[in-house]
Amino acid sequence: MKPLQIRNQQLVLLDQRLLPTQVEYVTCKDWQAVAEAITDMVVRGAPAIGAAAAYGMAMAAASLKSAAPAQFAAGLAEAAAGLQAARPTAVNLAWAVERMLNVARLHQGRDVNDVAALLWQEAEQIAREDVAVNKKIGEYGAALIPAQARILTHCNAGALATVGYGTALGVIRSAAAQGKKISVYAGETRPYLQGARLTTWEMVQEQIPVTLIADNMAGFLMQQGKVDLIIVGADRIAANGDVANKIGTYTLAVLAQAHKIPFYVAAPVSTFDLCLQDGSHIPIEERSDRELTHFAGTRIAPEGIQCYNPAFDVTPAALITAIITERGIIEQPTETAVAAVVGE
Amino acid sequence: MKPLQIRNQQLVLLDQRLLPTQVEYVTCKDWQAVAEAITDMVVRGAPAIGAAAAYGMAMAAASLKSAAPAQFAAGLAEAAAGLQAARPTAVNLAWAVERMLNVARLHQGRDVNDVAALLWQEAEQIAREDVAVNKKIGEYGAALIPAQARILTHCNAGALATVGYGTALGVIRSAAAQGKKISVYAGETRPYLQGARLTTWEMVQEQIPVTLIADNMAGFLMQQGKVDLIIVGADRIAANGDVANKIGTYTLAVLAQAHKIPFYVAAPVSTFDLCLQDGSHIPIEERSDRELTHFAGTRIAPEGIQCYNPAFDVTPAALITAIITERGIIEQPTETAVAAVVGE
Repeated sequence: MKPLQIRNQQLVLLDQRLLPTQVEYVTCKDWQAVAEAITDMVVRGAPAIGAAAAYGMAMAAASLKSAAPAQFAAGLAEAAAGLQAARPTAVNLAWAVERMLNVARLHQGRDVNDVAALLWQEAEQIAREDVAVNKKIGEYGAALIPAQARILTHCNAGALATVGYGTALGVIRSAAAQGKKISVYAGETRPYLQGARLTTWEMVQEQIPVTLIADNMAGFLMQQGKVDLIIVGADRIAANGDVANKIGTYTLAVLAQAHKIPFYVAAPVSTFDLCLQDGSHIPIEERSDRELTHFAGTRIAPEGIQCYNPAFDVTPAALITAIITERGIIEQPTETAVAAVVGE
Repeated sequence: MKPLQIRNQQLVLLDQRLLPTQVEYVTCKDWQAVAEAITDMVVRGAPAIGAAAAYGMAMAAASLKSAAPAQFAAGLAEAAAGLQAARPTAVNLAWAVERMLNVARLHQGRDVNDVAALLWQEAEQIAREDVAVNKKIGEYGAALIPAQARILTHCNAGALATVGYGTALGVIRSAAAQGKKISVYAGETRPYLQGARLTTWEMVQEQIPVTLIADNMAGFLMQQGKVDLIIVGADRIAANGDVANKIGTYTLAVLAQAHKIPFYVAAPVSTFDLCLQDGSHIPIEERSDRELTHFAGTRIAPEGIQCYNPAFDVTPAALITAIITERGIIEQPTETAVAAVVGE
């Protein structure tokens, strides 16, 4: 079950809003539909939305095959802006769109048909690379996991959040494949329940024992000595190693420090935004009140209240034991340590 | 809207499982029905279940009016055991049942009818006292609240968790009544959503501005400097000041310490269990997996997983700025400080 596939040059997305009880697909016929699917969280997870946006760009190019070069460029620019605006926090989206635009720029002046074909190949390359990158992250990360480990994770940084394999869950998969005795605690991850719905489901598929908890139980688990390490994904990482990730990550990092538990982040190099000096510059998406006031159409909170619903938070580098990338491990991340592994 | 009332010598409970969207009542005709309502969380909140159990004992006595003295005593003992077993963590339940048994013991040998009448009066007295006690807690606590304060609370320690007025929310009510500019952040309190469903609803009634958050957003709020203080209720407090309260409380206390935010507990003296040296001896109720795997009948997590669903956690006294009781404030709680205010 893949989060994204191509059929007849259309992007077919597994509708992650309905998992694990329903397996349905959404077919995106144009880049606008891709942008909408990203905003509505049909597809989610920083690497997955990057790959989806790359295909969105490729589809925009394909639809412009009979356009004049200037129209082609304008159409691509419009698609790029629309896709980049679909969700603000994960930088992989902007990274993938920018990479696609670079291919178009590089081949400016060539036949529009050829450029469109090259863009399609580039999207496929981004998707292929993502799986390879995740496997490499899994390899590096598995070396950090003890022979027996009870691992707490948050949200879903698994195969469903990427083109395949996963980042944080990729590390867990890789450690389990090496024969390490792994059990996982999945925080349910309110309000969208990616942990309850997606991470548990992936672990069941992998036959890795998984225990679901409400997010507010994490501290009590650690107090009881039931967590050996924490590993999460990332949506954007600043030059100094500050990490934006799913709301609740920062709370886990504070708890990890208080309990002297290692706190790892697993993310591809495409998640780094070296233009940002620190995490305070990362835009934090706020989503609809309805995610908190309603559940599956049922009202769970009264009318007349306010809601605060940030989708991400920022964990300072000082709380992070290591960031695991496909180029190696950044221990005790600082600007220098990040640059040494991720810098050009 | 009162959480518990008496009509025709029967206990009528507001069904808190259905709030805020439905206002329905459950009528308990005997002590068994009261015990069931406590277990099923029709009524919840440490002081409220204490008062409900007292009425359960009074109803048991009333049903035994034609019994021989030995049968009367045996019947009361049976009701006491059944009610005390309804929920394990909140000690107010055991406290109220024990207080009722003491009245029966004190009047042993008197006409059973008279004892039953005295027990009914005692239950009424417990209920009356609870409201008075909460108002006193509110008075003491309000002195700790600055003229302007953004207050984070967890679960519901309000009028609905008591016979009326509330403990943590009583302090908030009292501060607001004094003209202080109060706004409240309510953590939704998974899995049972007492914050989303009950605390927000009480604040709307009181016209105190309230903002709902998912529990995992608390750390991010504090990191941004948006929380001036935290105040919660309690289900059982050990002799050294360790506090058992709704799951998630411990996480908030760790976050409060990391952000240098005052962390207050508001609870009546009946919540103290001075027989327990510290919090490690407090029994922690674990509830059904279904509270995590399902929502309003809808499955939200896959089959084949484990769940961990403790209803409470224990916050060490060292993380607590002060405990507010009806007898005064216990600052920086220790065994000595607790004994000075709560000891006989």
